[in-house]
Amino acid sequence: MKIAKDDSKSVKIIPLGGLEQIGMNITAFEYEDSIIVVDCGLAFPTEEMLGIDLVIPDVSYLRDNADKVKGLVITHGHEDHIGAIPYTLKELNIPIYATKLTMGLIDNKLKEHGLSRSIKKKVVKFGQSINLGCFRIEFIKTNHSIADAAALAIYSPAGLIIHTGDFKIDHTPLFGEAIDLARFAELGKKGVLALMADSTNAMREGYTPSEQKVAKTLEAAFNEHKNHRLIIATFASNVDRVQLIINTAHRYGRKVVVEGRSMVNVIKTAIELGSIEVPDNTIIEIEEMGNYTEDQLVLITTGSQGETMAALSRMANSSHKKVTIQPNDVIIFSSSPIPGNEKAVSKIMDSLTRKGAQIVFHDTHVSGHACREELRLIYALTRPKYAIPIHGEYRHLMANAEIAREMGIDDEHIFILESGNVLELEEDCAGITGKVPTQGILVDGLGVGDVGNIVLRDRQQLSKHGLIIIVLTLEKYTNQLLAGPDIVSRGFVYVRESEILMDEAKVIVSDALDSCLMRNISDWSKIKITVKDALSDYLWKKTRRNPMILPIIMEV
Amino acid sequence: MKIAKDDSKSVKIIPLGGLEQIGMNITAFEYEDSIIVVDCGLAFPTEEMLGIDLVIPDVSYLRDNADKVKGLVITHGHEDHIGAIPYTLKELNIPIYATKLTMGLIDNKLKEHGLSRSIKKKVVKFGQSINLGCFRIEFIKTNHSIADAAALAIYSPAGLIIHTGDFKIDHTPLFGEAIDLARFAELGKKGVLALMADSTNAMREGYTPSEQKVAKTLEAAFNEHKNHRLIIATFASNVDRVQLIINTAHRYGRKVVVEGRSMVNVIKTAIELGSIEVPDNTIIEIEEMGNYTEDQLVLITTGSQGETMAALSRMANSSHKKVTIQPNDVIIFSSSPIPGNEKAVSKIMDSLTRKGAQIVFHDTHVSGHACREELRLIYALTRPKYAIPIHGEYRHLMANAEIAREMGIDDEHIFILESGNVLELEEDCAGITGKVPTQGILVDGLGVGDVGNIVLRDRQQLSKHGLIIIVLTLEKYTNQLLAGPDIVSRGFVYVRESEILMDEAKVIVSDALDSCLMRNISDWSKIKITVKDALSDYLWKKTRRNPMILPIIMEV
Repeated sequence: MKIAKDDSKSVKIIPLGGLEQIGMNITAFEYEDSIIVVDCGLAFPTEEMLGIDLVIPDVSYLRDNADKVKGLVITHGHEDHIGAIPYTLKELNIPIYATKLTMGLIDNKLKEHGLSRSIKKKVVKFGQSINLGCFRIEFIKTNHSIADAAALAIYSPAGLIIHTGDFKIDHTPLFGEAIDLARFAELGKKGVLALMADSTNAMREGYTPSEQKVAKTLEAAFNEHKNHRLIIATFASNVDRVQLIINTAHRYGRKVVVEGRSMVNVIKTAIELGSIEVPDNTIIEIEEMGNYTEDQLVLITTGSQGETMAALSRMANSSHKKVTIQPNDVIIFSSSPIPGNEKAVSKIMDSLTRKGAQIVFHDTHVSGHACREELRLIYALTRPKYAIPIHGEYRHLMANAEIAREMGIDDEHIFILESGNVLELEEDCAGITGKVPTQGILVDGLGVGDVGNIVLRDRQQLSKHGLIIIVLTLEKYTNQLLAGPDIVSRGFVYVRESEILMDEAKVIVSDALDSCLMRNISDWSKIKITVKDALSDYLWKKTRRNPMILPIIMEV
Repeated sequence: MKIAKDDSKSVKIIPLGGLEQIGMNITAFEYEDSIIVVDCGLAFPTEEMLGIDLVIPDVSYLRDNADKVKGLVITHGHEDHIGAIPYTLKELNIPIYATKLTMGLIDNKLKEHGLSRSIKKKVVKFGQSINLGCFRIEFIKTNHSIADAAALAIYSPAGLIIHTGDFKIDHTPLFGEAIDLARFAELGKKGVLALMADSTNAMREGYTPSEQKVAKTLEAAFNEHKNHRLIIATFASNVDRVQLIINTAHRYGRKVVVEGRSMVNVIKTAIELGSIEVPDNTIIEIEEMGNYTEDQLVLITTGSQGETMAALSRMANSSHKKVTIQPNDVIIFSSSPIPGNEKAVSKIMDSLTRKGAQIVFHDTHVSGHACREELRLIYALTRPKYAIPIHGEYRHLMANAEIAREMGIDDEHIFILESGNVLELEEDCAGITGKVPTQGILVDGLGVGDVGNIVLRDRQQLSKHGLIIIVLTLEKYTNQLLAGPDIVSRGFVYVRESEILMDEAKVIVSDALDSCLMRNISDWSKIKITVKDALSDYLWKKTRRNPMILPIIMEV
């Protein structure tokens, strides 16, 4: 690794998220007084982030350089690439560039946040380029589990960087074109400074199968279950999959019901934009289901990941108002569980089976990400000087780096970055030359960033063993006990069945308090600590639990 | 399904747990005045059971029929089959029957609970039978992921019931004998009333591979990584796996270090019982590691499931006092993630990779449960009249039932039970004739059953958005406000950065309180509700959060 000497000739690549976890993809590219930002995604909270709805990137580096930032360029419409856009744009009004469906999904978000009118949006076609400051960005057609996904060719004075976005190679996609491999090859011939390639499946050998495989399985399922109602759960954003289901249903003379908020919204947007074409009289309202027999119906629903509030969960636990699962239902999971969701998915499958429904989940999904052979091909076509693995956990980035090495890229030309790293690249030298602030910002309800480690630690303690409040009133001047100590607990034990424990706890607290007052201790914080410690010791001895103990003193 | 007419000729099978989830296996068999209990396991808490350590079965049916209960018969030493024994034996002093290693592991538990001396324990050999009241129980050798696993042939006056326990068929086990298929066949010829077979892998086609496969992979790993330190994570209870690792290490001239509390305990017990044989000078103390070079060492450690407190986790996050992960380490996961643990395992692999270690996890583990072909074989050999699938979630039980059907068992002779069902069986008729109370009892620290739904609901609410306490002091007779209202919050927002919100909240509370006092409302519960509702509305409007709000009134 060498360090760039001459700032003015190098392009800076600064990932502001996405390298420590799945999600929250956002990368800044900087050359002199131009910055462009690629993607602006959210991450879903980890298990320890109790009560948190989502996590968004810290864009303080962009805010501090707001005059340089020329625009936001988006590769595709998944939440981990577009989910933080409204939050970022509230701090930084910059234009957005994206393909048609991607922009449609972004615009839905902007509308929800009341931002749609104030932001400049430009829809870009594949093959088309946009100029942003010193940069020119060309959109290249790829395949992925959402339509209209793009790779980006980012031309800078220091050289050409190819950013694949999330991608796979599908030579035989069901709808639209295959990935534009010829363009990758052309660019490779012209000379590529750096390739930033999707690492998600870099640990998997071989190729990701074509969407044709799913089409075959679905066809078979429609054939096999001709007398059953079919309920198909999939990702709302996989519009090609939805199109496939609609077409198959139409061919089998079935009506399609769309259920689940995000499914309804995405399909509506996709239809408006022409990304989905629905044969006449194929989609019906859920209320119309009663007019058809079971063998005439297909439901497309959200909830394939076992999400508690999604439509399929509500069907599984009998709380769905309009759909009742029956023994004659066949439920097709056209999805794989995202790591971490396995148990939730398994639980929902179990509940559906208990209601007599049949589950189909073999070969009903293909990944949206390139496996090792596909990555080798992309390296072979683009022949980059530098490789910068992106998208994935550290092991995935390492696996991608291994492929780069196999493909003949020098070890010192491969960079596994951390979020915040400033990587400076030019033809002859490259190196990490700085660090900018990055961290996940927690969103809880309407609050952005008002929940941090202290609040989370409190939630964790409260979640484990609840809390005990000790409250008492003292006379202001004499420190005489006027009322209490009273003990209130929540989430600790079921008080009515633990009377002895709670009575004894009260004695412990009273004794500790008396000893303080008798020794004329007037420092409230001392009183609080004494009482708290005494109760904490007692409860640990009796229950091996560690509830939060909150002494509150009032003065009169 | 027919209903038994004559009680005295039928045997009752009453599962007290294990059919609604993985774990908590326990089944009562009853004939006239004899009850025997097979297994007595725990379940691990589900995600919603915040702060709970483990879940044990409700044995009130056994307690209510204590005079009938003749003994506890255990199939093997896994936690989901033995983990609740100490809790149950505190309520019910009955003798335990098990094979050698199983009894050794049980006895460790009894010692921890100070129960070892007061309980009668009898070690049973394979092929041997015991008589308990009207029942005779024969122990049959099987294969599983723990040594000394047994199936049970339960002879009752109503007929013979075979209970497989957890099992698989390994024709070429590394240590000990293969499953005694001949005995299953003999019993089949004599006539089997019912087969209760392990459903865990009933959804998987084919055969579970032999432990020989793991031996090959391990051999290859030892060969490939001759200059590296090897750290092998596996289940402590898989003593055959541990024996394999020790033998392989010995052959390659490496010393073995055992790390992790449960690994140390189990290996100690297994060595004492002769279940593991260690070549002289092979195991060394962890403190002696410094005397050897990396290529002379193998560590066997707990933590293969990503458990936060286990040794491997501590190594991964640099908090292990005696082992520091180095770039020269090769870490072998000789295990598969149990459903629900995938993300934790992936996280730990990522941390280890970041430290430069290499991870090996392909073909390093085989399941301990029979797949569909093996189940077919067991049905073919035993030719039972009735099939009662056990062990697994509902889908697994259903898949097992499907195999039974394929094997020619009448649909009405197949029973998928729920915990608490009383199934009465005799040669000519069978049916569910009753229901006994069952439920998971939550263990939290030293408390058994003192945490229920109300406490859990409180913990859930507290975990999401914390709590706000409103405290005030009123004059007893006049209801005059003497102190407060004060607001204390925990786990809600970071108060120092949310001063405006908290100040406004205080105004809202004061206003609501004033309105009550001005209207001379003296009913404290009314005051509390008014104040709580006002604050709750305000906070929802401002933050879209729903913290627990606790108004506390003191009187002077």
